[in-house]
Amino acid sequence: MTVLKVFSKPKLKNAILIEGLPGVGNIGRVAAGYLVEELGAKKFAELHSKWFFPFVMLHDNHRIHLLKNEFYYVKAKKKGHRDLVILVGDCQSLSPQGHYEVAEKILDFAEKMGVKEIITIGGITTGELESNSKKVIGAVTDEKDLKKYKKLKIDFDASEKVGYIVGAVGLLLGLWKQRNKDGLCLLGQTTGLPIVTDPKAAENVLNVLTKILDIKVDMKKLDKKVREMEHFIKKIESLQKRALMEITSGSEQGGKKAEEQTRYIG
Amino acid sequence: MTVLKVFSKPKLKNAILIEGLPGVGNIGRVAAGYLVEELGAKKFAELHSKWFFPFVMLHDNHRIHLLKNEFYYVKAKKKGHRDLVILVGDCQSLSPQGHYEVAEKILDFAEKMGVKEIITIGGITTGELESNSKKVIGAVTDEKDLKKYKKLKIDFDASEKVGYIVGAVGLLLGLWKQRNKDGLCLLGQTTGLPIVTDPKAAENVLNVLTKILDIKVDMKKLDKKVREMEHFIKKIESLQKRALMEITSGSEQGGKKAEEQTRYIG
Amino acid sequence: MTVLKVFSKPKLKNAILIEGLPGVGNIGRVAAGYLVEELGAKKFAELHSKWFFPFVMLHDNHRIHLLKNEFYYVKAKKKGHRDLVILVGDCQSLSPQGHYEVAEKILDFAEKMGVKEIITIGGITTGELESNSKKVIGAVTDEKDLKKYKKLKIDFDASEKVGYIVGAVGLLLGLWKQRNKDGLCLLGQTTGLPIVTDPKAAENVLNVLTKILDIKVDMKKLDKKVREMEHFIKKIESLQKRALMEITSGSEQGGKKAEEQTRYIG
Amino acid sequence: MTVLKVFSKPKLKNAILIEGLPGVGNIGRVAAGYLVEELGAKKFAELHSKWFFPFVMLHDNHRIHLLKNEFYYVKAKKKGHRDLVILVGDCQSLSPQGHYEVAEKILDFAEKMGVKEIITIGGITTGELESNSKKVIGAVTDEKDLKKYKKLKIDFDASEKVGYIVGAVGLLLGLWKQRNKDGLCLLGQTTGLPIVTDPKAAENVLNVLTKILDIKVDMKKLDKKVREMEHFIKKIESLQKRALMEITSGSEQGGKKAEEQTRYIG
Repeated sequence: MTVLKVFSKPKLKNAILIEGLPGVGNIGRVAAGYLVEELGAKKFAELHSKWFFPFVMLHDNHRIHLLKNEFYYVKAKKKGHRDLVILVGDCQSLSPQGHYEVAEKILDFAEKMGVKEIITIGGITTGELESNSKKVIGAVTDEKDLKKYKKLKIDFDASEKVGYIVGAVGLLLGLWKQRNKDGLCLLGQTTGLPIVTDPKAAENVLNVLTKILDIKVDMKKLDKKVREMEHFIKKIESLQKRALMEITSGSEQGGKKAEEQTRYIG
Repeated sequence: MTVLKVFSKPKLKNAILIEGLPGVGNIGRVAAGYLVEELGAKKFAELHSKWFFPFVMLHDNHRIHLLKNEFYYVKAKKKGHRDLVILVGDCQSLSPQGHYEVAEKILDFAEKMGVKEIITIGGITTGELESNSKKVIGAVTDEKDLKKYKKLKIDFDASEKVGYIVGAVGLLLGLWKQRNKDGLCLLGQTTGLPIVTDPKAAENVLNVLTKILDIKVDMKKLDKKVREMEHFIKKIESLQKRALMEITSGSEQGGKKAEEQTRYIG
Repeated sequence: MTVLKVFSKPKLKNAILIEGLPGVGNIGRVAAGYLVEELGAKKFAELHSKWFFPFVMLHDNHRIHLLKNEFYYVKAKKKGHRDLVILVGDCQSLSPQGHYEVAEKILDFAEKMGVKEIITIGGITTGELESNSKKVIGAVTDEKDLKKYKKLKIDFDASEKVGYIVGAVGLLLGLWKQRNKDGLCLLGQTTGLPIVTDPKAAENVLNVLTKILDIKVDMKKLDKKVREMEHFIKKIESLQKRALMEITSGSEQGGKKAEEQTRYIG
Repeated sequence: MTVLKVFSKPKLKNAILIEGLPGVGNIGRVAAGYLVEELGAKKFAELHSKWFFPFVMLHDNHRIHLLKNEFYYVKAKKKGHRDLVILVGDCQSLSPQGHYEVAEKILDFAEKMGVKEIITIGGITTGELESNSKKVIGAVTDEKDLKKYKKLKIDFDASEKVGYIVGAVGLLLGLWKQRNKDGLCLLGQTTGLPIVTDPKAAENVLNVLTKILDIKVDMKKLDKKVREMEHFIKKIESLQKRALMEITSGSEQGGKKAEEQTRYIG
């Protein structure tokens, strides 16, 4: 039961999928969400799944909605641009098999919609409190792709130290490679707690991403946008706390911190 | 393996489903259970599922039964009334995917039985010990429904602060909305521990609900009823403690408290 | 993937299934295992499942085998006797849905083999260290069955206090009742830790059970048998410790105790 | 969703499958990986599964890949040799049912490829710091096989004390036996933490294994090879730490230690 609800079927050609689901520092979520706003992307499909939290979210105007992932698109506006599909959402899956099943569903749909390449956006905690040197770390499905990104400020050498990438950011790329297709992953370095939204790291990733896509996006509004999204972000952080609590159950620290802020509803 | 056992097929028209499964403060369970009694509702179906606890309950007269959810109905008795389906039960699902699968099964059956609208009842812990001001908080599937409930003492503005709703109370509504259908959720505020039954909060919700349904229910018997149900409620609280233990595994507090009262049988 | 391997198909008539899988105090396992030995019951089928631990056991003679449940039978030898099917095994399921799925598989097979009634055997911890008064507590699927067991020393009134029964002991009975069939559950009271085998409690249950079945079994060998089974029992206790650890994860006590004795193999 | 990707179909006859997936001391992984290198075995298939961690690994050259198990083969080079299939990989399954499902998939494929016998390699922690006496402990599917291994330094008597074998090492053998086929399990004793790679124990197992297979392998390069694999091994140890954390959730020690080294990515 992973259900796709398709509202319209835009004709896309040679499209790139940008993934930005909630994760470390919510870097992907903020970056992709900002792109949706700035580019005026149109929502054309959404997905919900039994692998998500058994929660509904409460919106403005007292309305509820299921946790979901959403697909937006923007058609190329000039030469050199590519059609874009942007994937944002409220959450990722709770369990390993859910991660795999939802990722496959997303990729099946992306292929059908004409997506040829994907770029996933995530974060990575450095564990230290370095103030300025927030890098963007990259990884690719195929070595040949490295040339394309040579001139950009992406640190491809750090990926060796990273070791592995958890969740949709990594899995979408890994399963996409399995289909003999190309992709790139951009990880923004963040210094704080994994569940605290880091708009600066998101901006760093956006700076790289817009160069890849050859588009211009006004970064000035990013901070303002993040403040506007604050309430929504708080909810997502809260969901991630619960997810983290499940993942680190058994570790007192994670569990305790998350628990302190748990309220019971239902 | 979520199995529906249907005893009879009442002909219902334009019916409302009232859901009251065990949850925070057992507010839904108590409120819906009281309606079943006061309205003389008739049981017509029950559901059990592999997603429930692998337990059987022991009843009066030394009999055992599987954990189950039960469907009751009352036909409209006069103009302005609606046919009602009331869903009560011993428990909710243990795992996320179970919540989704059981909720879909319930909604499939409700649709087939002629249900057009649903009202789910739950609770919310305030986290503070405010003595008197126990509100009923509401949320809807669609903004247009707000007008209907305008004159009733439902706090629709608090829902924003609530953020999300866990379990059947939220999920039934969210999945129902996905079917383009309308519904309402009523959350009774409760001040104590999430697993301690709060009849007063249930009464607050019932006061609102009976006005919506335009029916009269004698609240005087509620306390008495709750006392009569005490043994049954203890078992449900015990089940919830175990569920909470699973959910908050990793958090010492939840785990420990629950564990102290665990006895081993089987 | 719950697989039945059937070695032979004995013709059974109006048979009773006796279930004794590992559980609290291993009372069912010891009682049913002793019946198998004393009555010379023949093995005719076994079951393994993906819901069991992902372990194999090591036997005498350095051989390994999958964790399994085993079906034995004894044909009635004189008038008044009933054909018996005895279910013993290494373990129960690890997860809730596994419990339900394996129980349904067992009952499907039992029905096909001509079983009309089931008696499940388990244990219950009293939580206190009472020395002598180890009762046998009973519960039934239908009140009418109480008459049959009236004259036996079964405490049917305590079941109300017990509240619910976990695992195969309860679930087999609950799902059997759902098929409109009759059954009885016998719980031996045990005073110690839930995972320590209690042969005395098993004997108490056997005393009641042999009267129900109208058979004679020499209890003198029980202690000796348990000593012979000691090594096997240790392994089962070890499995149960791990299961308990999973169930009570989040509770320090359960977790810690189990962990102290965990060795890593694989 | 356990997917086999088959690159070529070598014609194998009467082949032996050698399994060496990550596990205690990574003994199987190191031993089987070393055989792949020394014998110049060719990769012909790989497997990924939703039962694995929802991770991708980062390789040299900044490339990502899905977690996977890999099948290699070597054809017999002279009389007395057997065709070999060698199974190595990044990880085992995370959940019990995953272990069973992946193991069945592996065995189905092995049978189809002409495998007649399997040898699984694992480790066992002794719990004590004995310096020299690292034994190789064995277990078989059938007693008759013991004769074959009589003259080799395999301790078949210790298996009784071991009690049970966790994961692929045991389960592949148990499910293979269920298919009425023969196999052997070799467990290298290791003295340290279960997740620290022990090349010495791997060498002990290789000494026995090469005698069984009647092949010669130069052990001198083993240490060098392990150093070369160091980075890869660190990642596998890291995965195992997370797995162990899940398995021992509830036990402070396991949880805490693992948590200290957890970084958040995604």
